[in-house]
Amino acid sequence: MKILCQKSDLLNGLSIVSKAVPSKTTMSILECILVDSTAGNIKLTANDMELGIETVIEGQIIEKGIIAIDAKIFLDMVRKLPDSAVKIETDDDNKAYITCEKAKFTIIGKSGEDFSYLPQIKKVNPLIISQFSLKEIIRQTIFSIEENDSNKIMSGELFEINNNKLRVVALDGHRISIRKIDLKDEYEDKKVIIPGKALNEISKIIGGSADDDVSVFFTDKHVLFEFDKTIVISRLIEGEYFQVDKMLNNNYETKMSVNKKEFLSCIDRATLLVKEGDKKPIVVSIEDEKLELKISSTLGSMKEEIDIKKEGKSLVIGFNPKFMLDALKVIDDEVIDLYMFNSKAPCFIKDADENYIYLVLPVNFNNVG
Amino acid sequence: MKILCQKSDLLNGLSIVSKAVPSKTTMSILECILVDSTAGNIKLTANDMELGIETVIEGQIIEKGIIAIDAKIFLDMVRKLPDSAVKIETDDDNKAYITCEKAKFTIIGKSGEDFSYLPQIKKVNPLIISQFSLKEIIRQTIFSIEENDSNKIMSGELFEINNNKLRVVALDGHRISIRKIDLKDEYEDKKVIIPGKALNEISKIIGGSADDDVSVFFTDKHVLFEFDKTIVISRLIEGEYFQVDKMLNNNYETKMSVNKKEFLSCIDRATLLVKEGDKKPIVVSIEDEKLELKISSTLGSMKEEIDIKKEGKSLVIGFNPKFMLDALKVIDDEVIDLYMFNSKAPCFIKDADENYIYLVLPVNFNNVG
Repeated sequence: MKILCQKSDLLNGLSIVSKAVPSKTTMSILECILVDSTAGNIKLTANDMELGIETVIEGQIIEKGIIAIDAKIFLDMVRKLPDSAVKIETDDDNKAYITCEKAKFTIIGKSGEDFSYLPQIKKVNPLIISQFSLKEIIRQTIFSIEENDSNKIMSGELFEINNNKLRVVALDGHRISIRKIDLKDEYEDKKVIIPGKALNEISKIIGGSADDDVSVFFTDKHVLFEFDKTIVISRLIEGEYFQVDKMLNNNYETKMSVNKKEFLSCIDRATLLVKEGDKKPIVVSIEDEKLELKISSTLGSMKEEIDIKKEGKSLVIGFNPKFMLDALKVIDDEVIDLYMFNSKAPCFIKDADENYIYLVLPVNFNNVG
Repeated sequence: MKILCQKSDLLNGLSIVSKAVPSKTTMSILECILVDSTAGNIKLTANDMELGIETVIEGQIIEKGIIAIDAKIFLDMVRKLPDSAVKIETDDDNKAYITCEKAKFTIIGKSGEDFSYLPQIKKVNPLIISQFSLKEIIRQTIFSIEENDSNKIMSGELFEINNNKLRVVALDGHRISIRKIDLKDEYEDKKVIIPGKALNEISKIIGGSADDDVSVFFTDKHVLFEFDKTIVISRLIEGEYFQVDKMLNNNYETKMSVNKKEFLSCIDRATLLVKEGDKKPIVVSIEDEKLELKISSTLGSMKEEIDIKKEGKSLVIGFNPKFMLDALKVIDDEVIDLYMFNSKAPCFIKDADENYIYLVLPVNFNNVG
């Protein structure tokens, strides 16, 4: 193989695909990035068997060929090259000769034949969504997936198309995050569970412009995201997702409207007095025109009042401050509404149209202060 | 005690003094910051027994008093307060009540009596140096102190005043870094060893303006730096510093002039092929008009040429790339001169006036590529 490309294009491509290089693996070929120019374009691929990323970069092919190069060395090297043209040549022993201005590297690569190719996916009936919407909907929900692998289904997000709306759901044992957006076209109803890891990596790669789209293709086992000159393929999580609708209801005894930023800053200050790993709740007393927030620990205590509007009964309720903060951070509304039933029942934060619903379970508290 | 101050002033003061709070200690009083308003100003102090920092902040004293508050909680809390006036009150049980707008914190503090005060130092005959010069001279030498405590004297820097010049020396077993600056006034000759930790912290705190000065006071056991409204006191390292002048000489067989940036980038690229912890040398072949740099490891190999000017003999010499990079990074000259004797003798990088001298020992190399 013999190809020529600009350092900046190569670096950009390597940065994108390296997101699918596993940090720990016993198969050293998975630690490589495949450079493949056999099909007449310069294609970079990485694949950890769950998640695969492929991108095409600009460049000139002088002689077609294919080689796999250790991702870490390749990326570090290109990063440090002068901002100039890069030539990559290979020989029959899978050595790669990389030249840029007066610097000449020789890197021992691996045969492209050993590389695991991405699954072939038929690109029909894509779901079209803007890069902005996809990036936002991931950011606004991903924090509430279960991070450890104790429950495989909780480690992914439900993507559900129903009546030309896309609903994304993430939940762990303590909270549920739901976001809904209207789709521009008509789509068949569909329900898949996409691994959180894939969504995290995609949201890092896509630019987030409202003018650029992502095409999403589904099969029984895989999802494929296509945007710019890149495709990301992930296995789907198999199984049935939780019956989320049964966990939601519209009854409440107490409704509170509060300035989001004030509420957030106040909880943020309260968490200072909680040592890491300690499960100290914040206690919120909701009264007629004000909310009083209290926390008390071995380090000291804090008390703060915020103005609110209340409908219904007064209530004293305890929360894990982290769960409340996580939800508040991704809501853009200036004033938010919280719906509660009693100190044992879930608290709902939602807008009038239910474009977002955040459910947070309360926690027990001892009488504080 | 009852004092009032602005959040920003308090935060700035706490950030400065917290540099002297030890990260690990068995004496919990050392983890505190002392707030002392007994002398009619608001003084914050931290002290880890080797290094002490004291700063005075603006504010209003309603009732004089003194208290020690855990540095981490205090700093985190003030950081999260609204940008407004902060009131600190204490009671007889060493509880601190901190109020800012509607937020009220109660923190359990410690008696100010338990705090170790900074040593009293008579402020006479200060050395005056600009904040810029002090910050620069530390940055340009500190990297070559010995970091682990195997040799106490190597963990500090020699500050030597001689003939109205300040010379700063740092060395470990492999290299020496020397910087010299002219002083504006006349000073007595002096030689002290200042701990590297103290110099590191000072260089983080001082602003680095060429228009603001630092006054440096010396006693037999301590050094005191005074600037803005802050003083930093450090114990000196006791003992005799190395006879540096005996290690320097002006003989050479090979002199090479090279563009610093080109040489640095080239070595930087070569280090890619060195795994962390591996002591692979770079091999530099100095010829008439060019230098050839080679490195070879299990990961691959690299070769690069740079244009140079040479006087004297051709030479092949090996270096630890890190030591060469460290020195090159802090030299501002566009073109630098290297003086060598043979492949076993130290290499000197220095300017004509010897305002800087960097000595780097060569390393053995097997014949590479």
